[in-house]
Amino acid sequence: MHYPAPISKLIDSFMKLPGIGPKTAARLAFYVLNMKEEDVVQFSKSLMDVKRDLTFCSTCGHITEVDPCYICKDKERDRSVICVVQETKDVIMMERMREYKGLYHVLHGAISPMDGVGPEDINVPQLLERLKDEEVKEIIMATNPNIEGESTAMYISRLVKPLGLKITRLAHGLPVGGDLEYADEVTLSKAMEFRTEL
Amino acid sequence: MHYPAPISKLIDSFMKLPGIGPKTAARLAFYVLNMKEEDVVQFSKSLMDVKRDLTFCSTCGHITEVDPCYICKDKERDRSVICVVQETKDVIMMERMREYKGLYHVLHGAISPMDGVGPEDINVPQLLERLKDEEVKEIIMATNPNIEGESTAMYISRLVKPLGLKITRLAHGLPVGGDLEYADEVTLSKAMEFRTEL
Repeated sequence: MHYPAPISKLIDSFMKLPGIGPKTAARLAFYVLNMKEEDVVQFSKSLMDVKRDLTFCSTCGHITEVDPCYICKDKERDRSVICVVQETKDVIMMERMREYKGLYHVLHGAISPMDGVGPEDINVPQLLERLKDEEVKEIIMATNPNIEGESTAMYISRLVKPLGLKITRLAHGLPVGGDLEYADEVTLSKAMEFRTEL
Repeated sequence: MHYPAPISKLIDSFMKLPGIGPKTAARLAFYVLNMKEEDVVQFSKSLMDVKRDLTFCSTCGHITEVDPCYICKDKERDRSVICVVQETKDVIMMERMREYKGLYHVLHGAISPMDGVGPEDINVPQLLERLKDEEVKEIIMATNPNIEGESTAMYISRLVKPLGLKITRLAHGLPVGGDLEYADEVTLSKAMEFRTEL
């Protein structure tokens, strides 16, 4: 026996999401069956709306309902700094900090020769284009602190340095509220290397 | 800063699902943003279809596209046995076994005084109704082997016994492929009590 067709199709859809296997997908699909009608309608609509109403800002690559996005449009923001991040989510994380007042550039990925992702496959050419036109003085590389993120930061820094721009990288060190015992050796050695005076 | 409205609504919808918190919901919503258009359309449609096209069989309570469901309609099946389960999913689990040829009855829950769920809140009255009309000889209680499931089984057995019907319960014991070391004491003592001759 199989699941009734509608359930089976919904299970397939859930399984397309990351980290959701057949068992979880089935659990979620059966949960939907018992959800309130209006919640399901809203869910279904939201899925379509996200796909239809959101585009990427043609300047910075952030998701937005209007192009250019509200960050690129904001006259209050410091146009001399661009913070380069890998994903849209990272912009939202940075904005949550409520401290950074510059602009962003979303790469939508990182350079990863293993996965066949080169600089042209991510938003690198668009970044170089922006550097020509704008009154930019500093680039902050906020790519992830892993191999792909680091290599992307290195690659971009080599392209940007000849243009005479300042290029910086987010600091490595111990996470605040963390425990020395649980820090890995590399993080600890970075924290040691970049220790600050009290 | 907040998420753009469409993303934020989709995150809310994902958060309504069981076991999905704000972080996972955000991860899934951003994943949807990058999914293929046709997959999202299919996902959105499946959600509505499940809600619209599926109903519960008026006889056994199993989900179905047509009422009565294909199990209740099947002339080949043994109408003298009814297997009582808590959820629709359990019917599918039982059917996967490909051994049971009787009918089902889905309770859609279990008696749980702690949560204010009484016999009238689940499909118990409908079960008693079925017992009057049909040529039923045996009821197999296949509710979950936990407190709620066991009490539900006990409760129903007390109602059914006076009708002169045979009522059985799924066996307790060691799971096949399991390891004695990891069995809990209660399971082990049940396995001991109901040991079979070789």
